[in-house]
Amino acid sequence: MFKRVLIANRGEIAVRIIRACQELDIETIAVYSDADADALHVRLADKAVNIGPADAQESYLNKEAILNAAIQTKADALHPGYGFLSEDADFAEQVTDAGITWIGPMPETIRLVGDKDIARASIMPSGIPMAKGSNPLNSNEEAIRSAKEVGYPVILKPVSGGGGKGMCVARDEEDLKNILKLLVDITKEKYYFEHFIERSRHIEVQVVADNYGEVLHLGERECSLQRRNQKLLEESPSIALTQDMRNRVGALAVKAAKSVHYSNIGTVEFLLDLADNEFYFMEINPRIQVEHGITEVVTGIDLVRTQICIAAGESLDFTQDDVTFTGHAIECRINAEDPDKNFMPSPGHITFLHEPSGPRVRFDSGVTAGLDIEPYYDSLIAKIIVHGRNRGDAIKIMERALHEFHIEGVKTTLPLHNKILRDNYFRTGNIDTQFIKKRMPAYVSAPKKMKGMSDTELARAIIESMYLA
Amino acid sequence: MFKRVLIANRGEIAVRIIRACQELDIETIAVYSDADADALHVRLADKAVNIGPADAQESYLNKEAILNAAIQTKADALHPGYGFLSEDADFAEQVTDAGITWIGPMPETIRLVGDKDIARASIMPSGIPMAKGSNPLNSNEEAIRSAKEVGYPVILKPVSGGGGKGMCVARDEEDLKNILKLLVDITKEKYYFEHFIERSRHIEVQVVADNYGEVLHLGERECSLQRRNQKLLEESPSIALTQDMRNRVGALAVKAAKSVHYSNIGTVEFLLDLADNEFYFMEINPRIQVEHGITEVVTGIDLVRTQICIAAGESLDFTQDDVTFTGHAIECRINAEDPDKNFMPSPGHITFLHEPSGPRVRFDSGVTAGLDIEPYYDSLIAKIIVHGRNRGDAIKIMERALHEFHIEGVKTTLPLHNKILRDNYFRTGNIDTQFIKKRMPAYVSAPKKMKGMSDTELARAIIESMYLA
Repeated sequence: MFKRVLIANRGEIAVRIIRACQELDIETIAVYSDADADALHVRLADKAVNIGPADAQESYLNKEAILNAAIQTKADALHPGYGFLSEDADFAEQVTDAGITWIGPMPETIRLVGDKDIARASIMPSGIPMAKGSNPLNSNEEAIRSAKEVGYPVILKPVSGGGGKGMCVARDEEDLKNILKLLVDITKEKYYFEHFIERSRHIEVQVVADNYGEVLHLGERECSLQRRNQKLLEESPSIALTQDMRNRVGALAVKAAKSVHYSNIGTVEFLLDLADNEFYFMEINPRIQVEHGITEVVTGIDLVRTQICIAAGESLDFTQDDVTFTGHAIECRINAEDPDKNFMPSPGHITFLHEPSGPRVRFDSGVTAGLDIEPYYDSLIAKIIVHGRNRGDAIKIMERALHEFHIEGVKTTLPLHNKILRDNYFRTGNIDTQFIKKRMPAYVSAPKKMKGMSDTELARAIIESMYLA
Repeated sequence: MFKRVLIANRGEIAVRIIRACQELDIETIAVYSDADADALHVRLADKAVNIGPADAQESYLNKEAILNAAIQTKADALHPGYGFLSEDADFAEQVTDAGITWIGPMPETIRLVGDKDIARASIMPSGIPMAKGSNPLNSNEEAIRSAKEVGYPVILKPVSGGGGKGMCVARDEEDLKNILKLLVDITKEKYYFEHFIERSRHIEVQVVADNYGEVLHLGERECSLQRRNQKLLEESPSIALTQDMRNRVGALAVKAAKSVHYSNIGTVEFLLDLADNEFYFMEINPRIQVEHGITEVVTGIDLVRTQICIAAGESLDFTQDDVTFTGHAIECRINAEDPDKNFMPSPGHITFLHEPSGPRVRFDSGVTAGLDIEPYYDSLIAKIIVHGRNRGDAIKIMERALHEFHIEGVKTTLPLHNKILRDNYFRTGNIDTQFIKKRMPAYVSAPKKMKGMSDTELARAIIESMYLA
């Protein structure tokens, strides 16, 4: 097992990784920007290294500074968390070349799954259904021709994108021309598109794979509740799936992972078309996922520990048959954003914090009272994860946990979560990826504050609002 | 199901009960003394009623005020928690007579098990082993004669006592005479004694019984780690038990409960004699126990919900075969006491609080930052409960949870827990009820501060220190 792990991240996921290391008796090295000198992950780690100014480009995305920190502290492994450098194949390679174990898939795997076009091409031969789509678009003419073949509506996605940013839906050729003119031409990003499935659920499958070819799945996560393609609330299992469908999508995920010789843990994302109950492959995320905790509570398997153990060369100590599922888990993502001001980030000083706790409630957070929420980074500050006997029970537990949660000094997405939990469509499980847009349209209106945006940002914002996926 | 439950308690157990009610969609009425106007249980309940001054005698032990509060708020049930009025059969009767459901065993059961002498007499015919003992002592001569028959060492226990207070061990007749002269004669309490088992473990079994005669057990809790007969750290399962012994003690507990026609949940306490691996019945506690959480995490059964459902007339929806045990749980009780000053209560203002959380950690607490820890009540402020794959894993998780816990403004028992967790005897499971006395004698020295004690208190303190059980 590793002696010392450097955690190349911040916030709740850095805290999560530190916890896993401590439980495995591994020393932890935190890194931090000037803005994070007092952060919780810094306080909990055995040692912490300053890696630069507040701006993430100069700190958490500063490969040289992070690699130097790992070398100087004699870390024998590095955990990238999610976001930041976690999907940067070049960095994974640099780390590996420095003789430090990268806790994640091999660099070539990250590279492969990171390019959606190559990923689709690699996985398609194994017979996994995919939404009909285009190659990366080289010209507007090609796009228009190709869209006709695929059939409208189509969804445009940036080739290098992730996390749902920059996606637009064109319902006809006029839409597509507008999008091409205003978005693609201006942002200069490379786009491809897929046939857009009107009513779908976002179903993703957690896979674990050791370095010896064993690949298992840990069931699905239902992530359809999204606002502007950002996940808000996730659950496991999905009540849309029969046991037969669960087995089917699990097998598809394992097949997808095997087809790219995947190792370590990852997530295979699918769209479930509600018209024909067919799963369509979207992408593989080669890292720990924000919402990994719901899988942990229903399976009892610690995913971060598993990542570390696999990277250390251990083989999986359980089989697919050993994986069992108990109860129902829900996660609410708490962001420091103001839902009444179009989810503008709400940085500030936390003057008071009372965390929800007690039976069946898990609180994964990166903050404490007395700290500042910085404007430089992602606004996710905590995740509330509950484990009920069944879905109705989980909803009740989440309601009481939200009732207990009390933070002063910043605005959060708490009111939106309360609204979702009380919604009858949600309560009966009648959800799809358009849920927030259809049920709570006020929460997905266009950004009101466009001052200070560059032309590119402005074009993107306008287009995204007009043709929101 | 009940519409509205009054919680006749405070602190962490009141919060725990409020949580269970909220998850069952039951309205909650808190009660509070003048000292607790801002307390967490008051903030979390739907409604709160002031029941008197800070002194518990005038508030949390004020039967009339509490009963009036229940009647005036139209509560249809009352949950007494633990301590305070939870074992007061008369109060249970008054509540029942007022047409309000008592969430606990019937008053006559509470009365029966509350008198240790009657309890022993009721349970003995069913063949449950008991430490050889005396009847309540009527004279010193009788005591000396009876002790000779039972055989030294003997442990003296107050008939009406509970929670381990006022117990002394006499190793010979001279000890006994001293104890009788200094303790029994002065305190005027009624005592009995039992043969003292030199090396024993405190093993207790959780039982659940519905109103229709079904009695099940939920496994054992190992509670041997005590300081001056106060539990400090509990675990489940006990590693001292083979599966055969577990079945045996479980069956004994069910038999004991059945022999007193027990209903609702309760705990049957045994001493496990390490000389012959025999279980000796001690007592039945007719209430929720502080350490109930460790049973909840290993069985997945919510004991407070179960209490409420049984009281509401539901029959148990599981059988003994359905009860399964997963992993290993440990609880550390965090008291606002100063371990370096002989566990003097450490009241004060909590200026900062960061709670341990994350995977497999449950934090049951009654406090938040900004509140005062009052000197009037029990010093238990929180319980950290962890759930590991096995005992070693649970110890690692507890270590990281203790590392995360951060409180400012009051002293706590945290340093003692860190010391216990690092102790090699503890780590290898080599523990008995004398563990703290033998391994950490500095923590059980006599009270240094006797100023302000009455003669009775002083006599008790001296004797208890000299002949500490």
